[in-house]
Amino acid sequence: MKKIINNPENVVTEMLEGVVEAHPEYLKKLDGFHVLVRKDSPIKGKVALVSGGGSGHEPSHGGYVGTGMLNGAVAGEVFTSPTPDQVLEAIKAVDGGKGVLLVIKNYTGDVMNFEMAAEMAAMDNIKVEKVVVNDDVAVENSTYTAGRRGVAGTVFIHKIAGAAAEEGRDLSEVKKVAEKVIENVRSMGMSLDACIVPAAGKKGFILEADEVEIGLGIHGEPGVSKEKIKTADEHTEELMNKILEDIQIEKGEEVAVMVNGLGATPLMELYIVNRKVAEIMKAKEIKIANTFVGNFMTSLEMPGFSISILKLDDELKKLLNAKADTPAFKQF
Amino acid sequence: MKKIINNPENVVTEMLEGVVEAHPEYLKKLDGFHVLVRKDSPIKGKVALVSGGGSGHEPSHGGYVGTGMLNGAVAGEVFTSPTPDQVLEAIKAVDGGKGVLLVIKNYTGDVMNFEMAAEMAAMDNIKVEKVVVNDDVAVENSTYTAGRRGVAGTVFIHKIAGAAAEEGRDLSEVKKVAEKVIENVRSMGMSLDACIVPAAGKKGFILEADEVEIGLGIHGEPGVSKEKIKTADEHTEELMNKILEDIQIEKGEEVAVMVNGLGATPLMELYIVNRKVAEIMKAKEIKIANTFVGNFMTSLEMPGFSISILKLDDELKKLLNAKADTPAFKQF
Repeated sequence: MKKIINNPENVVTEMLEGVVEAHPEYLKKLDGFHVLVRKDSPIKGKVALVSGGGSGHEPSHGGYVGTGMLNGAVAGEVFTSPTPDQVLEAIKAVDGGKGVLLVIKNYTGDVMNFEMAAEMAAMDNIKVEKVVVNDDVAVENSTYTAGRRGVAGTVFIHKIAGAAAEEGRDLSEVKKVAEKVIENVRSMGMSLDACIVPAAGKKGFILEADEVEIGLGIHGEPGVSKEKIKTADEHTEELMNKILEDIQIEKGEEVAVMVNGLGATPLMELYIVNRKVAEIMKAKEIKIANTFVGNFMTSLEMPGFSISILKLDDELKKLLNAKADTPAFKQF
Repeated sequence: MKKIINNPENVVTEMLEGVVEAHPEYLKKLDGFHVLVRKDSPIKGKVALVSGGGSGHEPSHGGYVGTGMLNGAVAGEVFTSPTPDQVLEAIKAVDGGKGVLLVIKNYTGDVMNFEMAAEMAAMDNIKVEKVVVNDDVAVENSTYTAGRRGVAGTVFIHKIAGAAAEEGRDLSEVKKVAEKVIENVRSMGMSLDACIVPAAGKKGFILEADEVEIGLGIHGEPGVSKEKIKTADEHTEELMNKILEDIQIEKGEEVAVMVNGLGATPLMELYIVNRKVAEIMKAKEIKIANTFVGNFMTSLEMPGFSISILKLDDELKKLLNAKADTPAFKQF
């Protein structure tokens, strides 16, 4: 296994230490926990957002801790849900008295452990609400999921619900806008190869030299089909068709687009995908208001990408364009 | 060759189209040229910065076109210098009457073609100055270089000279501060594997399953040595030793650190490297004022990383922390 690591057992701890060294102006680590929180936590009088999940998806979620996005991010072991006690510590550290919204990607372990933490926090008289993101249109149920998986569209929930919290909205209102984003976002991805989880030391699955996997999850869980590699335009069209079959977007409506790299995809290729996404939307007379191209939710060094489409209305548009200042997402 | 592309011949054109679709608020493409310039070009009364080089290093350099950094970026074919006519068009498009500074990475082709463009621009009565970045301490001469190569440290020149230009300084002053950054920045990288140039269709070099290349250039040109893979800490120490041997930094002095991914390196691994960089600097009592971790100058999907260290003084610190707003580098 060729990786730039020390001991596979310590990758998450060492990564978090490296994050704190890099971004002390944004965040701090809770002693003894794999939890990153805003440096100025708890912030009185504002709803706080907590997200997290297995590690290996960086910059998700620690990279989004900062003004206008998350207050706390909980990091499990690689591709493994964080335990409830870790989530509970995050909740306790960020609650400023106005409650905490948990943003959970729909994976069975994540949902269970975040819910358990929410119950424990309630016993400590902290108001906690949760939303479960299930944007991946590829498969209805999956290896680790009842229902659809939560993938890169989650970043839009961080951004928009985070902006709503920053505005001073109440917990129920922040939850409501998060649910609206979930209602309006769809994603789908594909991969050219597997990645290697450090503790496993070998690839999670095998693809032939000319084979790709369509609709693959961010932990390498099986997708819709394995097929021969086609052109970027053809694959983009394939993913976009599936996404646009699943959500009604009318002519003249506006969307935000995220072309997300899974870890080892050159930015060049992501932009080639984006070119086709723009062409498809133009033909449908759907207006792209915002485009994000880059590595937002990765699968270690997996080569591949996902596309997320978020249907906008005036409220979502305003919140999406609000200021954000985090290590991995900055917007004036 | 498994790549998310259409025709290998069109990757640069299609990428640039995708960039413009994604970031119309920042930049536009010059018709018929592989040149991206600030949307509001030319900006009257300010010195303009132009950089560029072969494609495949994204987000370098188009991603840095915007407020406080570059005014124009010229994209050659993959790993191939842009031609003088392309550079000339960029110069003409961005000159606002106060002159243009060319930021050139030290590769023979780049230097030759940018210089030729500068001479042509001078005939059009445009004031042009140039600086040549040679931050890579790995090798004194290289496959494509007389003298040291210019690598990721170049991004610091874009940032700092860009901020100086934004302040309204004259061309000679902007050039002077760019030269100061070049004087103060050192970089070195290593790689776990080669990348595939689309038009070539195969890897540029071969490494064994347990072998890495130390001091490799951003086009895969040979480095200092091939050796067995070691731990992240050991490799980081090896690169840092070479960098710190080359530049005198005293106890109590301040630096900026860039841990740069070459394209396929998980952010997790870059942060593990950063942890060790911080530890080394702490032991030497050198203060890290700013840290940048991410993909700033890549080599397509090459797995590996580079470290850049910039010695700061008050002027550089102030300019480094000035506002920047570009697709790939934003700072409040």
